[in-house]
Amino acid sequence: MQRAADGVVPHADVVIEGRRYEAILPRGGAGGAFDQVIDGEGCLLLPGLVNAHTHLAMTLFRGAARDLPLERWLSEEIWPRERRLTAKDVYWASLLGLAEMIRGGTTACADMYFFMDEVAHAVEETGLRALLSYGIVAPTPDRIDPELKKAEAFAREWEGKGEGRIRTALSPHAPYTCLPEVWQRTAALAREIRVPIHTHLAETAEEVARIRTEKGKSPAEWLEELGVFSVPVIAAHCVHVSEKDIEILAAHGATAVHCPTSNMRLTCGIAPVHDMLKGGVNVALGTDGAASAGDLNMIEEMRLASLLAKQRAGDPAALPAAEAIRCATVRGAAALGWGKELGTIEPGRRADGVLISMKGPHLCPGYDPLTDLVYAAQGADVTAVLVDGHPLFQGGELQTLDVDAIRGRCRRVARRFR
Amino acid sequence: MQRAADGVVPHADVVIEGRRYEAILPRGGAGGAFDQVIDGEGCLLLPGLVNAHTHLAMTLFRGAARDLPLERWLSEEIWPRERRLTAKDVYWASLLGLAEMIRGGTTACADMYFFMDEVAHAVEETGLRALLSYGIVAPTPDRIDPELKKAEAFAREWEGKGEGRIRTALSPHAPYTCLPEVWQRTAALAREIRVPIHTHLAETAEEVARIRTEKGKSPAEWLEELGVFSVPVIAAHCVHVSEKDIEILAAHGATAVHCPTSNMRLTCGIAPVHDMLKGGVNVALGTDGAASAGDLNMIEEMRLASLLAKQRAGDPAALPAAEAIRCATVRGAAALGWGKELGTIEPGRRADGVLISMKGPHLCPGYDPLTDLVYAAQGADVTAVLVDGHPLFQGGELQTLDVDAIRGRCRRVARRFR
Repeated sequence: MQRAADGVVPHADVVIEGRRYEAILPRGGAGGAFDQVIDGEGCLLLPGLVNAHTHLAMTLFRGAARDLPLERWLSEEIWPRERRLTAKDVYWASLLGLAEMIRGGTTACADMYFFMDEVAHAVEETGLRALLSYGIVAPTPDRIDPELKKAEAFAREWEGKGEGRIRTALSPHAPYTCLPEVWQRTAALAREIRVPIHTHLAETAEEVARIRTEKGKSPAEWLEELGVFSVPVIAAHCVHVSEKDIEILAAHGATAVHCPTSNMRLTCGIAPVHDMLKGGVNVALGTDGAASAGDLNMIEEMRLASLLAKQRAGDPAALPAAEAIRCATVRGAAALGWGKELGTIEPGRRADGVLISMKGPHLCPGYDPLTDLVYAAQGADVTAVLVDGHPLFQGGELQTLDVDAIRGRCRRVARRFR
Repeated sequence: MQRAADGVVPHADVVIEGRRYEAILPRGGAGGAFDQVIDGEGCLLLPGLVNAHTHLAMTLFRGAARDLPLERWLSEEIWPRERRLTAKDVYWASLLGLAEMIRGGTTACADMYFFMDEVAHAVEETGLRALLSYGIVAPTPDRIDPELKKAEAFAREWEGKGEGRIRTALSPHAPYTCLPEVWQRTAALAREIRVPIHTHLAETAEEVARIRTEKGKSPAEWLEELGVFSVPVIAAHCVHVSEKDIEILAAHGATAVHCPTSNMRLTCGIAPVHDMLKGGVNVALGTDGAASAGDLNMIEEMRLASLLAKQRAGDPAALPAAEAIRCATVRGAAALGWGKELGTIEPGRRADGVLISMKGPHLCPGYDPLTDLVYAAQGADVTAVLVDGHPLFQGGELQTLDVDAIRGRCRRVARRFR
């Protein structure tokens, strides 16, 4: 590890005190007595991967759905199954998603779903960091009050829980599933209780065409008019955004969450990540749910994001490895509202981190650890995961979850959803 | 594992005698005494992944090159380094590539490079199956005789070596690096000594434009006119092929080797895999060298091939999981000339196989093992690899390679190529 220019510090001792990084020292520099020492020889320490858009409980539908375009996939395969989900199903499926994410080096996520109390309990027990929200679906006036009530109650109840590791958001599901009043009232409420809005935006060409026909403008323009961007916005997908949309996102400091695997699997298209970054948009990365993405593996999302950006821009220098890593770490941390506390390894910052072994033959000879990480590493190369200084994965074992019990339960539950 | 339609046999005992599969029986059906029993509980047994286009020794340049388009990448980053390679460098770098490939479930590969005796020795010691060839570069008349001589000597010497695991090919490098005479003489020689031709074809739009300008036809049309397709052809990349090119490839039973990661990294484009398969072309998968692909991971190539095919065809049903697996197994085996001996698990076929654990949280709940394999499995999920009935990877250890020695040597060698 030779290049300080990318922020890579070779051969360092990293000292953690309580929940925070205390010092980054030359190897051998950390003296004194420690409660615990984690051997990072041959490993890269990253600030912790942030999955900025997911639906944890959709692990239960991994591999269950036929290969269909998004709108048919939702209406024929996913929604009918979701109507049969119980609160307990969501709890166990969320634990399964959390186990998978931690094993692969993810330390924080933004999750939007329903039965969110169950998701929040799962996150709280597990020790992950998360921004959680109830997904509001209100295409008719009668749904507005009950949906907003649920979303508000959840957001107020869980904000700051889990010793501060849980934050909340408000989540109108998408421009095509929520009436204007939903957006206006959500924005007002978000301002009042100081939480961000996490939504889906411009995921398909059909969505954009429909909003253009109905409102005479793009989804981003329409949401801007409704005042949504008066609060921090986390906009998942942003596949079909115009230059003007990019200006809107950038002007309001919104985050676009690129979910490349899910977008390709459902043939939504390829988001203009390179253009969004050039236009000043904060671009983070997410997996989306495992039902479309297949897995919740952020290293793969970095790799695919980088490859797709090159292809779409026609430029092999588009989204280089170091920038893909920033999208999966510091930009994701900023999106979730922890921009000042997370995303880099510096004294005073929260001690979220992931140790990745660079010793496998697929990572040799090792000219550039960041390039190898993005183009060659696997989730299984992760050897330790810390959140707030607590190890969630270490010595080959998840520290806060019983994977066998979770697998057994989820496999039994899955019989109902074949 | 419920669906026999995809050739998945649930709960089987698989019996191997010598180098061949002897029987596939219901669980508990295999009685008697065995020299060795491998526990496949919770695992999927595949016929062994075939990497149908690679340059093993380019592992030495993994992560070394700047992000450039193919032609500049070759001339500015790769060729200057290759000129400084020694035979011993190629030997150790090939071992590194073999270690990585076996660890990830690959049982056979098609490799084209130089210092091929060293590559062949590495393959022979390792126990992998391979189709090997010397890459002929002869853009000027004076290079033709010496290059063909090297290629022929290698092909004759190594054909059938390694107890039949090594076969050879002839490899004019590409239409833009070899004169017409090279192609004509190579085709005649290939017919005489009964080996296939393995080349690069239509990798970039620039190549196609150049050949069209010079010859008035596409690269595939030009090679057809030169008689190249009178022998079996393995054509790597085929990114920029016309409908007529697809007809040519199909009519002659040629194989197109799709290398999606490398093609995207170097912004070559996205091959029309769905159209080639519909047009009757045998499509196999390859990684290309690790310098462009980053790694030699065939599970990732299956995943990316499937995702890209959907995107390019605008159809989420394009290249479904089972078909991607066929491209990486039976279609690859046919490309390498082992179509009657490999590619499926049946009594009498060669006992090449890979066991993949489906027990990780990222593969739960497990509705469909083939879908989970393509969209969620990692190379690290491979638990055992067999070639000709011999275990090359088992119990977490490579059986025929000393990875620590290979890593140490390659890291030292790499200092010369920074």
